[in-house]
Amino acid sequence: MGEGTLDRITVRRLAIPLTVPYRLAFGAVERFDTLVVECAARDGRAGLGEATVLTGYTDETIEDSWRAACEIAGELAGLDAPAAQHRIALQLPQRPFTATAFGTALEMLEQSAALEIARETAVPILGVVNASGVEAMSRAIEDLLAAGYRTLKVKVGSALAKDIAHVGTVQRLLRGRARVRIDANQGFSAADGIAFVRALDPAGVELFEQPCAAADWDAHLAVARSSNVPMMLDESIYGLADIERAAELQAARYVKLKLMKLGTLGALAQALERIRALGMTPVLGNGVACDLGCWMEACVAARHIDNAGEMNGFLKARAQLLEEPLEVREAAIRLRPGFAPRLALDRLEPYTIATHHESSRRYRVRRA
Amino acid sequence: MGEGTLDRITVRRLAIPLTVPYRLAFGAVERFDTLVVECAARDGRAGLGEATVLTGYTDETIEDSWRAACEIAGELAGLDAPAAQHRIALQLPQRPFTATAFGTALEMLEQSAALEIARETAVPILGVVNASGVEAMSRAIEDLLAAGYRTLKVKVGSALAKDIAHVGTVQRLLRGRARVRIDANQGFSAADGIAFVRALDPAGVELFEQPCAAADWDAHLAVARSSNVPMMLDESIYGLADIERAAELQAARYVKLKLMKLGTLGALAQALERIRALGMTPVLGNGVACDLGCWMEACVAARHIDNAGEMNGFLKARAQLLEEPLEVREAAIRLRPGFAPRLALDRLEPYTIATHHESSRRYRVRRA
Repeated sequence: MGEGTLDRITVRRLAIPLTVPYRLAFGAVERFDTLVVECAARDGRAGLGEATVLTGYTDETIEDSWRAACEIAGELAGLDAPAAQHRIALQLPQRPFTATAFGTALEMLEQSAALEIARETAVPILGVVNASGVEAMSRAIEDLLAAGYRTLKVKVGSALAKDIAHVGTVQRLLRGRARVRIDANQGFSAADGIAFVRALDPAGVELFEQPCAAADWDAHLAVARSSNVPMMLDESIYGLADIERAAELQAARYVKLKLMKLGTLGALAQALERIRALGMTPVLGNGVACDLGCWMEACVAARHIDNAGEMNGFLKARAQLLEEPLEVREAAIRLRPGFAPRLALDRLEPYTIATHHESSRRYRVRRA
Repeated sequence: MGEGTLDRITVRRLAIPLTVPYRLAFGAVERFDTLVVECAARDGRAGLGEATVLTGYTDETIEDSWRAACEIAGELAGLDAPAAQHRIALQLPQRPFTATAFGTALEMLEQSAALEIARETAVPILGVVNASGVEAMSRAIEDLLAAGYRTLKVKVGSALAKDIAHVGTVQRLLRGRARVRIDANQGFSAADGIAFVRALDPAGVELFEQPCAAADWDAHLAVARSSNVPMMLDESIYGLADIERAAELQAARYVKLKLMKLGTLGALAQALERIRALGMTPVLGNGVACDLGCWMEACVAARHIDNAGEMNGFLKARAQLLEEPLEVREAAIRLRPGFAPRLALDRLEPYTIATHHESSRRYRVRRA
């Protein structure tokens, strides 16, 4: 076994409560169900990767992901990083989030250039209007504006009439002081999606995201044809084939990616550039991820994205994974050279549900 | 959740090399592939249980057992011990060894009377003649006799003519100074088994164990009918139904059990007594188990067995699981009151391949 052999692989299963429940079309998220992968090679190099499972957004469940991650850890111990990366790629189609935790940990271990930050860089992020009721919404919006946010996200997709009124209220309260991204998270039928865009005042609306079910491209196209605001696809998009399809069908001006859909930082950067090459605009960021995943996405956004990032999940969590906080100032993540992510194990202890550790010893014994 | 809730469950996967390879009909064992289960309740009670997987003896493989044990640990966290015991029982038919690690850990946690030792008790064990070549065999036999062993085990079942000669050599070297148990570990066809017993000098032979495949009762009966020494069944016997069948068919005078086949100390004691009630003689003990499993079997043997125990696996291992050594003097395990098994974690570190830990926190979070 060489010095690059993966000597220790640890997977931790965490349940991290949110400061307030995060309302999505398919239900409220009360906590992040997060797997953190830690890989260490014999030569001392190490890497971390995150998967925060969001059942409803993908088919992955935390129980299945945890079970699979434990097995994968056992398969990778004793391989070198390239061989491990190859093994992980086989898991990507079935379990993209889980595979990403391993794939990115291996990239970090291999000191991927994607995570290198030469000078302090501001990565603007959007704010989420998570409140309901005019008074609470007004307070939330003024707070976000005061904090420097110039792009706000509004969630719809649960009840048509209420959603129309809700967006109208946001627009009235905003008075054009920030762009609005409207996200239905697949919550609308084609008919409701069409009714929604017909009722929508386009003033200040940057885009309307994923009205219909991920696999129902016809429904999406029907809504897109009726829409007077630009469309974005999110849940419908996983790999390059989906991106090509979106361009071919002229289904959207924007395509949103998340690191956890792509498996690796390298694949993410490639996909973002492909979106641009096809004449669309890439949007990046995971609103349901901890600081580790958001930091990685911010590093990629710094090179490949020119609009507000959606990697703000860590701001919703009651605890951070990393010792060193991810700094946010003036509605932007501040990336600094030399940022060295280390798990805050003591702080995470109360949120740690399970731990799985594999070493490469089995191979040493076998070959002895 | 009550005070009896299982709060922490840890499974460790160990690979413990043997001092010398252990030769069995289906191959040489180079190391013990061992799972150790540790359960702890909120009230501080804790228990340990062992499964040392021996593929070939059962269908269980260490990879499958490890995977299953990780899943089971997750299912048990947050239950109380009786509910957990019920859940484990469902795993017994498919994975008896793995289930036993959990079942016995729960019994120890519940302070099972089966593990209580009121006064120092000697549990005689047998010695294994593992050498080949007359000189080495002679030395091994004299050493065993000098150490007090009065029952010796000889392994056959790999090559008929060699086996016949081997047993003859043992008998010649022994000159009646100890009983001989001959074990074929399913290695013979019916024809070879018959040829073997016809060639066998019955002098000093206590019994002949499991000549043929576990499921091939006809082959066993054919050998038994030709045999002039008492027969024992081992691999053919799992539960009570097999014991009844052995009695009904008059297939054996001896029936051998191992804790890891039965799932719990309670079920083991019950099965041993059933063997006796049916007019047969129970034999107990696992030659492929560490000190933890052997200690539990010795506790049961102290109450239920009147011949040499086979729980000598721990004497073959290069490392012991427990802090406090299991004392052997004059060819007997010396059970002492107040023996408190604790894992020797530091000493086991080099042999620990993987660790899986589950807490009941997930339930606390869910119900919050």
